[in-house]
Amino acid sequence: MSVLQGSVEQLLPQYLEGKDYSGIAVVADKNTRKDCYPRVKELLPKHHLITIQDGEEYKNLDICTIIWNKLTEVEFDRHALVINLGGGVIGDMGGFCAATYKRGIDFIQIPTTLLSQVDASVGGKLGIDFQGFKNHIGVFTQPCAVLIDPAFLATLPERELRSGFAEVIKHCLIRDRDMWNRIRRMELEEMPMQELINHSVATKKAIVTEDPTEKGLRKILNFGHTVGHAVETFHLEKDRLLHGEAIAIGMICEAYIAYSKGMLTETELGEIEEYIFSVYGAVQLDPQDFAAIAALTGQDKKNRGNTVRAALLNGIGDCSYDIPLTKKDILKSLKYYCGIL
Amino acid sequence: MSVLQGSVEQLLPQYLEGKDYSGIAVVADKNTRKDCYPRVKELLPKHHLITIQDGEEYKNLDICTIIWNKLTEVEFDRHALVINLGGGVIGDMGGFCAATYKRGIDFIQIPTTLLSQVDASVGGKLGIDFQGFKNHIGVFTQPCAVLIDPAFLATLPERELRSGFAEVIKHCLIRDRDMWNRIRRMELEEMPMQELINHSVATKKAIVTEDPTEKGLRKILNFGHTVGHAVETFHLEKDRLLHGEAIAIGMICEAYIAYSKGMLTETELGEIEEYIFSVYGAVQLDPQDFAAIAALTGQDKKNRGNTVRAALLNGIGDCSYDIPLTKKDILKSLKYYCGIL
Repeated sequence: MSVLQGSVEQLLPQYLEGKDYSGIAVVADKNTRKDCYPRVKELLPKHHLITIQDGEEYKNLDICTIIWNKLTEVEFDRHALVINLGGGVIGDMGGFCAATYKRGIDFIQIPTTLLSQVDASVGGKLGIDFQGFKNHIGVFTQPCAVLIDPAFLATLPERELRSGFAEVIKHCLIRDRDMWNRIRRMELEEMPMQELINHSVATKKAIVTEDPTEKGLRKILNFGHTVGHAVETFHLEKDRLLHGEAIAIGMICEAYIAYSKGMLTETELGEIEEYIFSVYGAVQLDPQDFAAIAALTGQDKKNRGNTVRAALLNGIGDCSYDIPLTKKDILKSLKYYCGIL
Repeated sequence: MSVLQGSVEQLLPQYLEGKDYSGIAVVADKNTRKDCYPRVKELLPKHHLITIQDGEEYKNLDICTIIWNKLTEVEFDRHALVINLGGGVIGDMGGFCAATYKRGIDFIQIPTTLLSQVDASVGGKLGIDFQGFKNHIGVFTQPCAVLIDPAFLATLPERELRSGFAEVIKHCLIRDRDMWNRIRRMELEEMPMQELINHSVATKKAIVTEDPTEKGLRKILNFGHTVGHAVETFHLEKDRLLHGEAIAIGMICEAYIAYSKGMLTETELGEIEEYIFSVYGAVQLDPQDFAAIAALTGQDKKNRGNTVRAALLNGIGDCSYDIPLTKKDILKSLKYYCGIL
């Protein structure tokens, strides 16, 4: 699988050259249809546009059925191509539909959000939410290519951009102390975004190439996500948090747990906390919700049996995985986050 | 992936030895629950039984949702095992659910019908029907093991056994003229079934190992299925035909097409036709349905664009693939089958 960065005008025709697809479909949502599709449309031969509703709450089996139906109606055979043009929801769900249509047809990802450019589009994790659990049904299948055009980021609201940046921070914290030391001294507006996208993609690609189906090393990418996913899931209904906003909370909580286990120094914990609070602020969590949030960590896909297992920093720039956490660890970390420990 | 033949009392404990599954579920239908599960139950530690309705009409997304729900309810993590105990429907659908639950957990197939023992359980094709199209949504994922116990065949109605035998015939016709010459001189009752199961599994395994995702060679396994699947799909609603009964029709039709293209001699066509009619009899097809059946061949997963492509015999024991067929070829072959050409 190749991950290419550049303008879509250059990358897409390059990808299609010499390929003889029997059909092409673009999956978009109403935002990318308006903001991104006009540039893509010009580059494609005759194709079908499948527009789905926008938002995580539509990442489900009903929308998959709509996509599968559409591919069936236009009589796509196994030699057709699906192009997923959008953020993580489009990439994960459009990819899942392509990977399961007639047992799998070609698909490429054109991620249009920072989050999907630095994270979701790389690594072959596809899927949908099910019964309130994130990415509960899915497969590991690599796309044929990932085409990253940073110009699409200009179409994003600032809050989305900030949210996606949480994964950039994560990649620095788990693998690259030097880059961490660079970014934590800069404002978000002055970041060298193209360089950071490359850095994140290279970091993630190296990890998933070594362990594509998450038997071991790949679990370090889950840093911040054990608590973060639970916080995100808990807030799906009310006071929606964006993915990166929840992961920012998770990274502070899990840094605290690593500190409490002697894996991070107090200085390192302070550094992480100070920077993340400076970018994301402190989210008001209600202590009455902590037990429910802690319970949700039980559904993480990295767990084994009833034990919650997390990836924890072993110093900044290094990360261990499969570390068992107790409910108490998680409750304490949430209290720490809220300054009530 | 290992395919093992023997008694389930020997094979299942052998498979489980040294494995530390966090949970085990058995997927069965009401027939295998009654006829096969009592033997399996004794061999397993604490486990969950998921019973689904019996029949191809239940091989759909609604039943998948029931299975996924059940796995979620019992809080299966990624280290759990699904055991599919049944025919092709159970194996294909239970396998698909396991291969997509949390992006894939371990599963093994214990096929209990001749059809699934000699065909469906080997090769990693999983999936469900969708909008009337067979196996339209699915994945290629190899099970961890296939455990074949021929003793389960004693629980089958004779018609089921005869239907499954069509795939044994197919494996001889596409790859082994000597075996073809042996079986066509025997009555079904006197067949050395264990030897034939081994022969079919070995034939299929050799082919799918060479080409797991059906880019080329594997397509020869589709012999008889281009017309056969269309006949089967057409009869899903009324006058249900079993899979093998439809494939028997397909093999005669496609042998005729091969003959008409100079790939089979008249003697070879006669041999094939005579033997298959002797086992399956001549099914009454209504010439008014031929156009609809021919139209259904357009949805075969081996096609490219609007051209139907089939695997045709190149003499007995040899098979070519990707041979374009016209609607006229198909219509003529159906007329030939009915003796009205």
